[in-house]
Amino acid sequence: MARFFVDKLPAEGTEYRLTGENADHAKVLRLSPGQSVTLCDGAGLECACAVQEGLALLAGKTVPARSEPRVAAAVYIAFPKADKAEHVIQKATELGAAEIVLFPSRYCVSRPDDRSLGKKLERWQKIARSAAEQSGRGRIPTVRALGSFAEALKQAGAADLPILFYENERARTLKAALEMLPGGGDLRISLMTGAEGGFSQEEIAKAEAAGMDICTLGPRILRCETAPLAALTAVMYALGEM
Amino acid sequence: MARFFVDKLPAEGTEYRLTGENADHAKVLRLSPGQSVTLCDGAGLECACAVQEGLALLAGKTVPARSEPRVAAAVYIAFPKADKAEHVIQKATELGAAEIVLFPSRYCVSRPDDRSLGKKLERWQKIARSAAEQSGRGRIPTVRALGSFAEALKQAGAADLPILFYENERARTLKAALEMLPGGGDLRISLMTGAEGGFSQEEIAKAEAAGMDICTLGPRILRCETAPLAALTAVMYALGEM
Repeated sequence: MARFFVDKLPAEGTEYRLTGENADHAKVLRLSPGQSVTLCDGAGLECACAVQEGLALLAGKTVPARSEPRVAAAVYIAFPKADKAEHVIQKATELGAAEIVLFPSRYCVSRPDDRSLGKKLERWQKIARSAAEQSGRGRIPTVRALGSFAEALKQAGAADLPILFYENERARTLKAALEMLPGGGDLRISLMTGAEGGFSQEEIAKAEAAGMDICTLGPRILRCETAPLAALTAVMYALGEM
Repeated sequence: MARFFVDKLPAEGTEYRLTGENADHAKVLRLSPGQSVTLCDGAGLECACAVQEGLALLAGKTVPARSEPRVAAAVYIAFPKADKAEHVIQKATELGAAEIVLFPSRYCVSRPDDRSLGKKLERWQKIARSAAEQSGRGRIPTVRALGSFAEALKQAGAADLPILFYENERARTLKAALEMLPGGGDLRISLMTGAEGGFSQEEIAKAEAAGMDICTLGPRILRCETAPLAALTAVMYALGEM
């Protein structure tokens, strides 16, 4: 079913008219009267609507989006090369991430300056929005960038379960870490992975001091764009969200 | 540690000389005497070697590769557009696939003719080899293409647990399907996903008749290049292989 993110959901029984990019998208889809589409506020609520004519919809009841996981998984990635960031943002959105946070680390090859970062964030947020529409998400993940590894540790470390995946860690598995999760309620997990060059030993020591759970993603070495998506998928599977 | 796939592993204590592409690769890496590298036969055995001088290595003991999962997971994907096939082959290799099998289906947008397929398979096998080297695999997954959906069902259906992921399936989860797995021994799982247009209802009926377990990958709709990798990751996680 086609899905449109809107600023404010219409009340049940009222008419809503698609505008702007949504209208352009609707024209491409050639919506016909009687068809159903979903309007979504991008923050977890949605309503099914019946197409009346052209771009006019009749709104149904507002309900929580059924496709949203109960766990809020924040994906923290060290700045990778540009096309990889786009890839991770698109796929992490499909896979159910709550937010994607980029940060600098010692071995980052690519580190955008402030000027280019603003433009990149705008583009990345659009990628997340479009992936959220296509995958039927009820929320658009926020894409953010931080100024330092220390700040990333501080923010990621505030989750109920903050994990950093390190290729030199051999013993501690994600499964063991997930067993530490408190039961019930809405949970926040952060999943941190490195850039092409991985993390330095000094960074790992700082991460441990900041309360990050240092885990392996298994004996095969995953590329920097594969690791965050594998971690996110495993978490969604483990917590019954796929 | 650098990793080279070779046709035949040298006996312990003998000298081995890197040749061809491996020699080119070794030169780029600037191996120095005393360093360790791994030679691997690509079929699950490997030996650590000490660099003597230049391209000459002193072979250690041959042992089973430690990075290979016990489960043989075959990833069956309907022909996607070209760059997506390459993406899935590279990532599925990193994630531990035993083989990647491409097949035609009704809604395939892209279906290579026999002439171009030969060249594509050659290229795809190289991608698998290179990804296997980089990720430290002990086996190079085989990349194959089949002529029909019926043949794909026949081959995939012969696994201990053959699963087809269908976006219109709502109830049956991968977790439930994995509970059907027999215990012990080496297991073979096949994971089948569709192309951009998904599967037709008729294809799903045929798959059920062929014994495929029709499962969902969750409430979020995954792209055709994301679904096989999410399925493979979840299987590796569930079976304790990451």
